[in-house]
Amino acid sequence: MARERRGGGRSRRAAQAANAESTAPAYIQRKIPYFEVLDDASLSIIENNAEIILEEIGIDFTDDEETLDIFRDAGAAIDGDRIRFPRGMCRDIVQATAQREFTQHARNPKRNVQIGGDNMVLVPAYGPPFVYDLDGGRRYATIEDFNNFVKLAYMSDNLHHSGGTICEPVDLPVNKRHFDMVYAHLKYSDKPFMGSVTAPERAEDSVAMAKIVFGDEFVDQNCVMINLINANSPMAFDGTMVGSLKVYARNNQACIVTPFIVAGAMSPVSAAGVAAQSLAEGLAGMSLIQLVRPGAPMIYGNFVSSMSMQSGAPTFGTPEASQVMNIGGSLARRLGVPFRSGGGFTSSKLPDAQAGYEAANTLNATLNAGVNFALHTAGWLEGGLSMGYEKFIMDADQAGMLRVSAQGVDMSENGQALDALREVGPGQHFLGCEHTQRNFKTAFYPSTVSDNNSYEAWVEAGSPDTQTRANAQYKKMLADYQAPELDAEIDAKLIAYMEARKASFEDSNVG
Amino acid sequence: MARERRGGGRSRRAAQAANAESTAPAYIQRKIPYFEVLDDASLSIIENNAEIILEEIGIDFTDDEETLDIFRDAGAAIDGDRIRFPRGMCRDIVQATAQREFTQHARNPKRNVQIGGDNMVLVPAYGPPFVYDLDGGRRYATIEDFNNFVKLAYMSDNLHHSGGTICEPVDLPVNKRHFDMVYAHLKYSDKPFMGSVTAPERAEDSVAMAKIVFGDEFVDQNCVMINLINANSPMAFDGTMVGSLKVYARNNQACIVTPFIVAGAMSPVSAAGVAAQSLAEGLAGMSLIQLVRPGAPMIYGNFVSSMSMQSGAPTFGTPEASQVMNIGGSLARRLGVPFRSGGGFTSSKLPDAQAGYEAANTLNATLNAGVNFALHTAGWLEGGLSMGYEKFIMDADQAGMLRVSAQGVDMSENGQALDALREVGPGQHFLGCEHTQRNFKTAFYPSTVSDNNSYEAWVEAGSPDTQTRANAQYKKMLADYQAPELDAEIDAKLIAYMEARKASFEDSNVG
Repeated sequence: MARERRGGGRSRRAAQAANAESTAPAYIQRKIPYFEVLDDASLSIIENNAEIILEEIGIDFTDDEETLDIFRDAGAAIDGDRIRFPRGMCRDIVQATAQREFTQHARNPKRNVQIGGDNMVLVPAYGPPFVYDLDGGRRYATIEDFNNFVKLAYMSDNLHHSGGTICEPVDLPVNKRHFDMVYAHLKYSDKPFMGSVTAPERAEDSVAMAKIVFGDEFVDQNCVMINLINANSPMAFDGTMVGSLKVYARNNQACIVTPFIVAGAMSPVSAAGVAAQSLAEGLAGMSLIQLVRPGAPMIYGNFVSSMSMQSGAPTFGTPEASQVMNIGGSLARRLGVPFRSGGGFTSSKLPDAQAGYEAANTLNATLNAGVNFALHTAGWLEGGLSMGYEKFIMDADQAGMLRVSAQGVDMSENGQALDALREVGPGQHFLGCEHTQRNFKTAFYPSTVSDNNSYEAWVEAGSPDTQTRANAQYKKMLADYQAPELDAEIDAKLIAYMEARKASFEDSNVG
Repeated sequence: MARERRGGGRSRRAAQAANAESTAPAYIQRKIPYFEVLDDASLSIIENNAEIILEEIGIDFTDDEETLDIFRDAGAAIDGDRIRFPRGMCRDIVQATAQREFTQHARNPKRNVQIGGDNMVLVPAYGPPFVYDLDGGRRYATIEDFNNFVKLAYMSDNLHHSGGTICEPVDLPVNKRHFDMVYAHLKYSDKPFMGSVTAPERAEDSVAMAKIVFGDEFVDQNCVMINLINANSPMAFDGTMVGSLKVYARNNQACIVTPFIVAGAMSPVSAAGVAAQSLAEGLAGMSLIQLVRPGAPMIYGNFVSSMSMQSGAPTFGTPEASQVMNIGGSLARRLGVPFRSGGGFTSSKLPDAQAGYEAANTLNATLNAGVNFALHTAGWLEGGLSMGYEKFIMDADQAGMLRVSAQGVDMSENGQALDALREVGPGQHFLGCEHTQRNFKTAFYPSTVSDNNSYEAWVEAGSPDTQTRANAQYKKMLADYQAPELDAEIDAKLIAYMEARKASFEDSNVG
């Protein structure tokens, strides 16, 4: 098997040993139904509207002649940058070769995650240029912050993935920071991760670094990176993002094709309209992947925020955004592709009550919708502009609750507990009964964040609010952090690759 | 019609005029599916287990000879206080005469609410002896606090009910405070309300005061009060609560029969066990209502908290409690009775992030489960020990989001928005398009609590957290409060009744 030839055997085994105490599953296998707000007839209408968009209105692919040629060859009508797709063309291309479910490999095979089907993978937030914590407030993120969040995600049993641009290390040059980010994911964690998408050559660098760890052939045959390709909504893709998409597709690495929508600005204000547009954009992007490399792994994404119609600001944790997410999940299952959406969204500037309500609303919607790859599960603040240390701890705790909810209800004889009811009887208590003794350790998810103490005990502890408690937790985690072992030879090769590449071109912050 | 003879015509019309500007619906009519975590086969197992509990283990009804006689006459086996019910007896009694759906009348008919079916009625929290606000912290509640919360609930468009013991006015004698509470609901609000249940004679007082407002015959023929009867779980009811239940049933007023359970203490730790026990307790209490007055309105209740197996403290907003709530909703629909559960639960001592996460988790579960009467929707803090002013404002805002979610997705031509997509086209924005102009005012639920401003604008505003903003809101609402008109003659009669009754027995704080 290709995997065995990649030279990471020793480091894998060491990592396995280091994490032997963790019994948390590598990802969530859902055992409850999906909650679908729309019926089949309504979903068919939205699918039909997506076809109308693709056929009549079309999608722009700018600054990318090659993509125009690929679609022309596949039967689309090209008019400048505008591509119009014969009815059903994109859906047929996707359904002919898309994988309904695939494995993303981690350098520690115990951390491999299954993408699609009834599985859920919970992933840190992505993209904030700022970080926030109680001590320092909001400030620009650095590579130290980035490394910290990789470590925290590694240590969080209820997060399954190391993520990608957890925060932007703005202390590093824009055109070179991708090296340090990919390196951090490989060095400080052994969970699966995401590559760089900000330029095609950075995608190539990400693939090259992955090959150092996993081996050339293994990477060509297996997904070891998932990569976030946003559409330029409405109904447009730009050449840079699409260039990265093609690099990853050719290397058999997964892309998420995500219409990024603030409804009212990049789409109509109504959920059914947003959903049709998102599906059209997703179908266009995903069919390109399948044309570039049939069978390449991919994920259909949704990112939808509603909008304050007073100020124009994006709003989060709202019922309308949850509805669109829910429709997206239904559409993905009907199409037969994994679905990315969800997360712990909020527009709050700090991890206060608003942040809690909004994040929980979105996380509950994520579970209802059956999101397979839940980017932004932990840390997101300020509409994605800020990555919160305390918020990360709080959201990761919620992630554990999602796991419990997804397990469903234990209907075994033990779960039915008739023995306990018979033993205890009317008017007595169950605290000491045999059934309780047998089950109490696993009966209830133990929140690491909630304070359930009495008021008096809480006052005695200094009346700490949630933020204060989470602040102490993240600091303790970073103090306790132990890196998973990385084979020294591989580490040296990664560093040598980075150094050589960094030396080969000038620093730039242009983009 | 009986209603027209009650003398409240003038005050009703005045109240209607005063609230003419409000376009909020009196209650939520759900248009989305239910989300059921268990399938029919599993629900049948739980129903069967409830029958085993009723038949083999039995239910205690203490200090209440009359109830033992009623059940004996109906065919149950009596052994001391223990009642064992032949298989199917309680279910048959309930299904023979229970109302699947009924109207609770308010003194303003525009505020009438429909209980059961696909309807949701959102109700303030109930029972806390303390209040909390940012200025004063936590302190014992007074009748002034009680009146304040009645006023806030009256002014909250997204709450449909005035509730009951919104907080305990501990500055009034225990045995007389029910007069002032019922009066406050009738005087400071025109929404439907809940009567006193802490003693049968207090239930009689509640009925008498309701008759002053609605008229004797109207009360006998219509539900004007909903009343909270907790079981003494596990598998027991006490004579005081059951005495109140019988008073209300005989007067055709609705009772909620609610097993009040901290799982692990008053029930087994496992969800399927809790659900079976709750159903057995509910069936026993509800069949008593139907035996006392066939057809009397009633509601099946669930109150389930999980438990910290470290400290024994009740915990809220947890996945296990949400699962039990979900099962309860399914069981109620199968039985054919309205369902009470849900709310904005938290064990946090203040309205911080924990409160937000936990309340939102429970409110989302409330929507999923299809709760008909959602007691504790707004204000709950500290595991129900404290009623929060700011928390009330935050939860009431979430209540508005539940309404939007329950409406479902607009699949009309306008909702599909193909005209907008055609008008705008690729790469452009939708801010000014005709469809957006037509819909922007109603497109998104406008949160009153969330701050969606830019970081800079937020800092300029003084960096207020959610609690600070909600504090200002509740004070402004109380300052702006205008009472709905109450007919002076009725008001005088209510006061006269209270004064005469209060003078007829000594103050007591014994219970």
